[in-house]
Amino acid sequence: MHETIQKTTMVIEDPLAHLPVSSIGEFRKGSTIYGPESPPSSLYVVLAGKVKICRAAHDGQQVVLDVYQTDEFFGESSLVGGGANEMAVSLENARVMSWSATEIREIVLKRPDLGYALLQLAVQRSLEFGNRIESFSLDNIERRLIAALLHFASKLGTSSDDGGREMIAFTHELLSQYVGTSREIVTHYMNYFRRKGCLNYSRKSIVVFEDALRNLVALELSSKAA
Amino acid sequence: MHETIQKTTMVIEDPLAHLPVSSIGEFRKGSTIYGPESPPSSLYVVLAGKVKICRAAHDGQQVVLDVYQTDEFFGESSLVGGGANEMAVSLENARVMSWSATEIREIVLKRPDLGYALLQLAVQRSLEFGNRIESFSLDNIERRLIAALLHFASKLGTSSDDGGREMIAFTHELLSQYVGTSREIVTHYMNYFRRKGCLNYSRKSIVVFEDALRNLVALELSSKAA
Repeated sequence: MHETIQKTTMVIEDPLAHLPVSSIGEFRKGSTIYGPESPPSSLYVVLAGKVKICRAAHDGQQVVLDVYQTDEFFGESSLVGGGANEMAVSLENARVMSWSATEIREIVLKRPDLGYALLQLAVQRSLEFGNRIESFSLDNIERRLIAALLHFASKLGTSSDDGGREMIAFTHELLSQYVGTSREIVTHYMNYFRRKGCLNYSRKSIVVFEDALRNLVALELSSKAA
Repeated sequence: MHETIQKTTMVIEDPLAHLPVSSIGEFRKGSTIYGPESPPSSLYVVLAGKVKICRAAHDGQQVVLDVYQTDEFFGESSLVGGGANEMAVSLENARVMSWSATEIREIVLKRPDLGYALLQLAVQRSLEFGNRIESFSLDNIERRLIAALLHFASKLGTSSDDGGREMIAFTHELLSQYVGTSREIVTHYMNYFRRKGCLNYSRKSIVVFEDALRNLVALELSSKAA
């Protein structure tokens, strides 16, 4: 109850409302925007396209932290000197606007409402990462993959005619790098979810039927409890 | 190279330098400071003692996000309306100072340098959570436990006479809630690390020999590669 009251009265500010126009960069699909050898020195916002933020491990493996789209920020680690091994890669042709960490500091000192808006954004992001840590600790791979599909469908998808959420066709490899498992295991579960009517996918898009996917987890829980 | 240069020129500001004195709360060891039913409505700083931040899962399980000590902040999720199921529990008798989310917003608008300092703190925290996600994705339980011991030894420990870092005697249960495994598995590895001379522990404290613990991982990697 308490939480609901707080959430409705809490104003989440939009940093974009407080930022001046800055330089624009264009990146073809698959281009590296920064990293892993050169960590970000700027804060970016996506103007068009989608950008994957990941960590590059020493043996060439990648861990996907998230995927950001139009009006979302990335590269905030530049404000503390850059995250180790962090990479930003465009998943589609992308346009981004950027401000150097020094510029951001100067603008924040003149426009404190930008500082507060960016602070809320950074806190929100660490809450989402906290959810991931919770899921890694408690959930098996199937449930982590379901959580990933629901996350991306809600965030990146649009309502489709058949009552699902249609979104960009992520590769099974990208999903495996988000969930922390192998591509083969993701393919196994994606086929299973499709057979159960929880999703459809083609080369072009994935359609996620959110309720069916949630029910799948609930059914498994109740069959275990029975 | 690039990263080193950035890190040395990047000034990380201290939010405490910009905050007025506020109300103080005292909590006995084991007390709940907030959550999980009532999410935080204030930002806190630890004045004395240690505070565990965790998520309470529906079946009574806990996931430990981190442990904070003197001069460290917690409850920043209050700035976006509170994290779902988040709890703060004092691990020792603790004294904390707190500012309501509304007060923080008012002070930030008057003192933009506080906004920037809190922004850096929140970004730093999401980087640390990113490290955890990376470790959950790539590392087995042994390596995750080693990373946890090195994290807490570096953060909470003090140099001991025998060349180790001595820190508060975390229970194996707390370590298991941070690493995402069972208490039994933590006990198994803690005994193994002790036999290998990487740590000593008693009821009162854990002494971590950081280099020996790091070497243990390196040795295992090289024996696998051989």
